[in-house]
Amino acid sequence: MPQNLADARYELAVANRILGHEGVLDAFGHVSLRHPGDPGRYLLPRSRSPELIEPADILEFTLDSAPVEPPKAQLYSERVIHGEIYKARPDVTAVCHHHAPAIMPYCITGAPLVPVFHVGATIGATVPYWDSQDEFGDTNLLAVKPEEVARALGSHSIVLMRRHGATVVGSSLHELVFRSIYSCHNAIYLSEARKMGAVGPLTPGEIEMAGAISTIPSVPLRTWEYWSIRLEKRGGMPPRGRTSAAVAKRPSSRPGRRTARRGKVKRRNTR
Amino acid sequence: MPQNLADARYELAVANRILGHEGVLDAFGHVSLRHPGDPGRYLLPRSRSPELIEPADILEFTLDSAPVEPPKAQLYSERVIHGEIYKARPDVTAVCHHHAPAIMPYCITGAPLVPVFHVGATIGATVPYWDSQDEFGDTNLLAVKPEEVARALGSHSIVLMRRHGATVVGSSLHELVFRSIYSCHNAIYLSEARKMGAVGPLTPGEIEMAGAISTIPSVPLRTWEYWSIRLEKRGGMPPRGRTSAAVAKRPSSRPGRRTARRGKVKRRNTR
Amino acid sequence: MPQNLADARYELAVANRILGHEGVLDAFGHVSLRHPGDPGRYLLPRSRSPELIEPADILEFTLDSAPVEPPKAQLYSERVIHGEIYKARPDVTAVCHHHAPAIMPYCITGAPLVPVFHVGATIGATVPYWDSQDEFGDTNLLAVKPEEVARALGSHSIVLMRRHGATVVGSSLHELVFRSIYSCHNAIYLSEARKMGAVGPLTPGEIEMAGAISTIPSVPLRTWEYWSIRLEKRGGMPPRGRTSAAVAKRPSSRPGRRTARRGKVKRRNTR
Amino acid sequence: MPQNLADARYELAVANRILGHEGVLDAFGHVSLRHPGDPGRYLLPRSRSPELIEPADILEFTLDSAPVEPPKAQLYSERVIHGEIYKARPDVTAVCHHHAPAIMPYCITGAPLVPVFHVGATIGATVPYWDSQDEFGDTNLLAVKPEEVARALGSHSIVLMRRHGATVVGSSLHELVFRSIYSCHNAIYLSEARKMGAVGPLTPGEIEMAGAISTIPSVPLRTWEYWSIRLEKRGGMPPRGRTSAAVAKRPSSRPGRRTARRGKVKRRNTR
Repeated sequence: MPQNLADARYELAVANRILGHEGVLDAFGHVSLRHPGDPGRYLLPRSRSPELIEPADILEFTLDSAPVEPPKAQLYSERVIHGEIYKARPDVTAVCHHHAPAIMPYCITGAPLVPVFHVGATIGATVPYWDSQDEFGDTNLLAVKPEEVARALGSHSIVLMRRHGATVVGSSLHELVFRSIYSCHNAIYLSEARKMGAVGPLTPGEIEMAGAISTIPSVPLRTWEYWSIRLEKRGGMPPRGRTSAAVAKRPSSRPGRRTARRGKVKRRNTR
Repeated sequence: MPQNLADARYELAVANRILGHEGVLDAFGHVSLRHPGDPGRYLLPRSRSPELIEPADILEFTLDSAPVEPPKAQLYSERVIHGEIYKARPDVTAVCHHHAPAIMPYCITGAPLVPVFHVGATIGATVPYWDSQDEFGDTNLLAVKPEEVARALGSHSIVLMRRHGATVVGSSLHELVFRSIYSCHNAIYLSEARKMGAVGPLTPGEIEMAGAISTIPSVPLRTWEYWSIRLEKRGGMPPRGRTSAAVAKRPSSRPGRRTARRGKVKRRNTR
Repeated sequence: MPQNLADARYELAVANRILGHEGVLDAFGHVSLRHPGDPGRYLLPRSRSPELIEPADILEFTLDSAPVEPPKAQLYSERVIHGEIYKARPDVTAVCHHHAPAIMPYCITGAPLVPVFHVGATIGATVPYWDSQDEFGDTNLLAVKPEEVARALGSHSIVLMRRHGATVVGSSLHELVFRSIYSCHNAIYLSEARKMGAVGPLTPGEIEMAGAISTIPSVPLRTWEYWSIRLEKRGGMPPRGRTSAAVAKRPSSRPGRRTARRGKVKRRNTR
Repeated sequence: MPQNLADARYELAVANRILGHEGVLDAFGHVSLRHPGDPGRYLLPRSRSPELIEPADILEFTLDSAPVEPPKAQLYSERVIHGEIYKARPDVTAVCHHHAPAIMPYCITGAPLVPVFHVGATIGATVPYWDSQDEFGDTNLLAVKPEEVARALGSHSIVLMRRHGATVVGSSLHELVFRSIYSCHNAIYLSEARKMGAVGPLTPGEIEMAGAISTIPSVPLRTWEYWSIRLEKRGGMPPRGRTSAAVAKRPSSRPGRRTARRGKVKRRNTR
């Protein structure tokens, strides 16, 4: 995990871009990280599409989701989801709220999202389904009283939000990215399998044992290397600001010369 | 919104290319914009595939869909759809006619296209379905008596045309692009959800409240930034002619050096 | 249509690459053109994947599918399909044999492939289905006695071959490319529509009138410009040899500087 | 087939990358090759995502899956699958273990994977389905006692592993890549065809005759050229170390100048 703030902001920008590039996020959705030096704060970009996020876009918030410094830019209105989960779940270090095509049919129909292959066990035995109608009746479906989302998530890893999307948590940024992507793969395989006939999930024992795979440190590290090099090859890495030598040495966070150049151009664009 | 004609033509070229790049349009389909200085005219490209449109391809038409200047190039035969809608709907600033794969199954079967997630509420509570057979019997299915399309659209935001495609309207070019893309996402999620079982749409209250999200100015601005940077990264921006400083300052409309060079080559190609 | 042999070979290489790039052909499949100066011969590449074809790969064959010059390279074993169709159908100028994912389910199940939208009318009212089992019993499913395929095609535009693929014909190379691509779109829309319920095809009158659209010269010219510029943008144009000025002036056949450079490298590779 | 070790390692790196690029492998899965000079050993990369594999990542193992030299990097825990198959099947030269989206619904439901088109006959008449529950009850679903997988594979070409993935074998690296990719195509076509109604496989005679096509040397050579040039165009070729002149002359294994440059950058990254 990143140890200082500059590294944390860079890694969070990369995570935002990976999840955009791999099709979990599009123009909407957001990814946050608990502050590496203060568990009572979290880092989240200003309101901008995830694939465009740069370290300079990332702001600090209290767990009540108030910006630590007066904001100069638009903020995500649904940032409260993040703050409330960090409050309720000390074990959570990173949060992703998304509307990935793979999970939307489950959000729309309420069909149960269950793990159907070993890597998919990362979603856990139960994925709760939260319907804002039950508590608030008609709304615009955005999460504005987000303690409800944190409560619906409970001790699980993912919560589905009716006709809206999903919120995923992880004990690290790498695990969050792993879980966000493979929960989509699991949803796609399950959707196709359902068209072939009745499908049963993994057994409880299999879910527990296979789910533990993603907690072996080398596993989300290997997937992070893969997704970040894919991103880099497409020229998608964020521009690098001043960061510590520690991050600069990691393969996944060193942009090629051309990427760095693009980065400079883009940073200018965001002002 | 663009204030002068040169900016308007450039933005319209970008909108054409975004909708091509995001899979709403292919070799066919077209996008128009009401003239920024004269509500009795509209801007529409000459007959060319949308992803190739350059500012120089964009012509002016009266609301009777007659070219203001004698045309030197082939025109879209279905341009009347645009003119008649601008006549009937003073609130409409931009129109897109498309045959996106996502909506074609609805055009073919007449299955109701209903909003099933918060962003999808942009299609509105009712998407009318127009069958040219009812009025004209056998035709080649192109809209040549287009007052019928405008009538079928009525006060709605999208109309489906049997075994042909869809026509979408917006109060701005940004909103039109937003609605065209997210109506396709909504159609895809609905199609998948139908395969899992019975699907109900959002409630009328949810449609109204969630549909209002796309009218918050920052929302279609954020999505426009996202789609135009995606386009730019693939080298897809139109060549820039002489345009005002106002547009040149916006991040989404400044092509990289390489794009500009490509643009010059391509402009020559169209002659 | 190309008037001299060098132009014809270049255009045929482009058509091969467009159909590869647009997903109609993959490692297999082939595209031929009747010889522009001798209707008793046809042009077809040596055995190579279509997206890699260069003008230098294209050979001349008699209508009995014998190479005019002793071949120095492997030939497509199924080239007889082309020769027999050119014999039987003087109106045919170009032939494509493919196994596109979009049509394979129809080849496997025998479900009728019918036109369901205006552009899809290019497939015609009837797409015959040929089963080699009926005539030859068990075979390796390759067409080796191809007068049967030509007979099954009859006067139609496409024939489906059981558990194998499809063969498409056109009165020009542009029309062939148009029909090959839009027959796949039609198949995809039909497949999705079938999952929503009963689907009827266009009426016979609609098929005739809408099918005529693709015979308006500007239509396949517009689509050819679109697909060839898409190909060019991805660096996919064939290397240019010595061709006439006529072709060099066309936008769709002028490769960018970088493409030309790649081309030189690749031509060396094929020897 | 590569005759010396340096060539073999380079070709194996290319095969890993092709299968990643064509969507058979993602962050997980692995491809091995029997040692060209010693049938009692095999070559397999260190634990890394296939699309990133470089010749320097490839290690030697005994058929008991012990590394020949003390490893300096993490190893694939499931490498035993490869060793046990090389022991049991002297005819096998290359092995791929994957979790391709195309075959996962078959692994989840147990629906029979049968050949439905001529190229798909490469999977053979029978694809066994192995359920670890039958022998071991609840596990984490990884293959850790892999003699079971080799036994389940028997004399066939592919074995499906319940809620896990597939293992494919080939008599050469080219055939393995061919079979891995076209078994996925076959699965996709079969899945779509099933949605249209009842589907029968090829007849036993057709499977035998059509299956023989992939054993004609020119066929997997043609597909290898296609997939490796596709990979090269995307800048995906592995960096070249010191290899024999024999390989350097082949078109598919000569990286462009830019690829070579990227390669150098990446090799540094893996240390």
